[in-house]
Amino acid sequence: MNAHILTIGDELLIGQVINTNQAFIAERLNAIGVDIACMSTVGDAMEAVLGALRTAWDSAEVTVVTGGLGPTHDDITRTAVCAFFGTDLVPNEDVRRHIGELMKKRNLPWTAAAEDQSLVPRSAGVVPNPLGTAPGLRFSGKGKTMFVLPGVPYEMKEMIDGSVIPFLAPLAGEQVIRHRTLLTTGIPESFLASQLGDLDRLLGGASLAFLPSPAGVRLRITVHGRTSAEADGTVRDVEGRIRSRVSRYIYGTDEEDLETVLGGMLAERKLTIAVAESCTGGLIAHRLTNVSGSSAYFERGVVTYSDASKTELLRVPAGVIGAHGAVSRETAESMASGIRGAARTDIGLSTTGIAGPSGGTPSKPVGTVWIGIADPAGTLAVKFSFGEGRVRVKERASQAAMELVRRRLLKME
Amino acid sequence: MNAHILTIGDELLIGQVINTNQAFIAERLNAIGVDIACMSTVGDAMEAVLGALRTAWDSAEVTVVTGGLGPTHDDITRTAVCAFFGTDLVPNEDVRRHIGELMKKRNLPWTAAAEDQSLVPRSAGVVPNPLGTAPGLRFSGKGKTMFVLPGVPYEMKEMIDGSVIPFLAPLAGEQVIRHRTLLTTGIPESFLASQLGDLDRLLGGASLAFLPSPAGVRLRITVHGRTSAEADGTVRDVEGRIRSRVSRYIYGTDEEDLETVLGGMLAERKLTIAVAESCTGGLIAHRLTNVSGSSAYFERGVVTYSDASKTELLRVPAGVIGAHGAVSRETAESMASGIRGAARTDIGLSTTGIAGPSGGTPSKPVGTVWIGIADPAGTLAVKFSFGEGRVRVKERASQAAMELVRRRLLKME
Repeated sequence: MNAHILTIGDELLIGQVINTNQAFIAERLNAIGVDIACMSTVGDAMEAVLGALRTAWDSAEVTVVTGGLGPTHDDITRTAVCAFFGTDLVPNEDVRRHIGELMKKRNLPWTAAAEDQSLVPRSAGVVPNPLGTAPGLRFSGKGKTMFVLPGVPYEMKEMIDGSVIPFLAPLAGEQVIRHRTLLTTGIPESFLASQLGDLDRLLGGASLAFLPSPAGVRLRITVHGRTSAEADGTVRDVEGRIRSRVSRYIYGTDEEDLETVLGGMLAERKLTIAVAESCTGGLIAHRLTNVSGSSAYFERGVVTYSDASKTELLRVPAGVIGAHGAVSRETAESMASGIRGAARTDIGLSTTGIAGPSGGTPSKPVGTVWIGIADPAGTLAVKFSFGEGRVRVKERASQAAMELVRRRLLKME
Repeated sequence: MNAHILTIGDELLIGQVINTNQAFIAERLNAIGVDIACMSTVGDAMEAVLGALRTAWDSAEVTVVTGGLGPTHDDITRTAVCAFFGTDLVPNEDVRRHIGELMKKRNLPWTAAAEDQSLVPRSAGVVPNPLGTAPGLRFSGKGKTMFVLPGVPYEMKEMIDGSVIPFLAPLAGEQVIRHRTLLTTGIPESFLASQLGDLDRLLGGASLAFLPSPAGVRLRITVHGRTSAEADGTVRDVEGRIRSRVSRYIYGTDEEDLETVLGGMLAERKLTIAVAESCTGGLIAHRLTNVSGSSAYFERGVVTYSDASKTELLRVPAGVIGAHGAVSRETAESMASGIRGAARTDIGLSTTGIAGPSGGTPSKPVGTVWIGIADPAGTLAVKFSFGEGRVRVKERASQAAMELVRRRLLKME
């Protein structure tokens, strides 16, 4: 089964928005064995949309369209698909009820725009949009299917995973494609490549990609197989070979993130944590609390940007800051044990560093970060150099801090 | 002048790589007045590439192709364009010399792959690639031009700015395109549409797009003009009309974000702020400290996830939490005045709510958030309903909290 992904929106054609939707859809379709034949993008103009719909519908078995379904005048996709399939709009009671409930939940009045959004092309099935007001549409004919979804990423993703994939999966599957991603952090791509570079020759039917990001290098295994069992077996084999060489650096798999992995470990061990952040500015607390259920182990966080707040909230002696500086092993350790004592948690975690762009010195350049950890076994701090870029330094430091806790829990260090 | 951007590569079709190249090229072409008619992506397969070249060449005056020019077996673009234009490969001495110099600089030996890369289609002009070995190609005919560039982003970008734009700019320049984006928050798309929907009829040569996101709705003005002066004048006129109707909701323009706008206002007024977060979990502190120079006004933040931390760090009376609950007007106000008192700042800001997915009740469903603010004029709290989705609730609450401070500073409320 092959597919065409058509994304619609002037914001894409002027380069204002990077097209992440098409990559997401491609990845999801691929996972169920649907090959993407082509992806295309046109603007919010009737003639262009109609031409693109024709090309997509004629060339692929499945077409997924996103964008231009909103309530404003520049949203022309619904009108275009009506014209393309020769149908008209009719009121849909289920859609109307859903929009009404959403509006009520958000304390918004019923408007003409809401009324308009509850109209659905007569020949289309409705693809529910749990997170938004614009319903998705499904057209079928001549053994082909077209899905039309809103372009708002979180609405679209929910609809792909909740409706489109479940609909297509039983129809797709002659060939099986499996991806598995191993997530590493704290180790450069070149080191991983030197450890794993020869695997490529050993991997029958599998390929390995190295995908670097500020959170670490992701190792993606891709396997084509004739059956699920065959493909899954190859994936397991390859994953085993990789783990036997670099397991120390792998903190999770696929869509996991480090905060979820670490949170699971803390919850399982019934441990609590508190965080004292300077240069990361609240990012570690933000990430830890992104995890549902984190209130079971995250007791508190403080963002001590001023020296006064370090002294008042963490009892870091003014003398320590005076003698060693706010960015030092001594301050990081004092912050970690200070937050652990104040919050009465099992673990105290701290960061202090120079996120930049200003504030660097020859001996403490921008990107210098001390990360401290205090637990029943004692207190220590580790120095890192994260390079330049304020937000990137924060991201890397938050990742390294959580990884320090993870390895400590595993008694790796 | 219009253009088609064709990106080639299997890694794009499986969703492994997000297509940032097409957005970059679109933005650069747009700036010199070239409209993008369509963007398309196909894999490294001869038939697909030939079909896509045909569609692009037939439909647009300019085609920009990237990807598949490298030295490995899966790079078929050069072969495809030779077939498409009916030409063959010939050695090019300039290209050969350039590749030789690059290889020498990198201490690499001359290889068969290097020899092969110095072959260029007979009917093509060379687009120099200062940063890499694969030369770019330029084909012309029937008033049309096609550029074929490597897909490596930094090589491609250098070639777009160094060769493609200088070549096209003199040919394009009959029209000028200007974009300006006004950033709103705290107001639904449907309300903005009802306030501004009639502008479309009034805007000669301009168009208005509504782009929703969790941070708010962006209003993008696009103007086509014959001269820069004319286009800039129209943009100013349209922006003025929009501001006269909805200025209250506009916090910034173009690439700005709310934390930068608010930070600028605090710095200019020499005011300080401290933040007490419950449901936002550190996100407000993280965003405020993403701004370079924020240590001048951001004194501290606390993330009080436990009731104990609210009492100890913010002096929220246990009786207040007991009587009204942690998610209440009273707790939000007490947190805001508590952090302001502890940090001795001009402004104290607080959030307390139910980010979900669990913890909701019929009277306080998931998404219920109280935001408190304390300043010399007094203390107040406002209730919001942000719907579902833990991270999205945090994002919306952080945006609403900073917007509350911004409007308070402007004496809007």
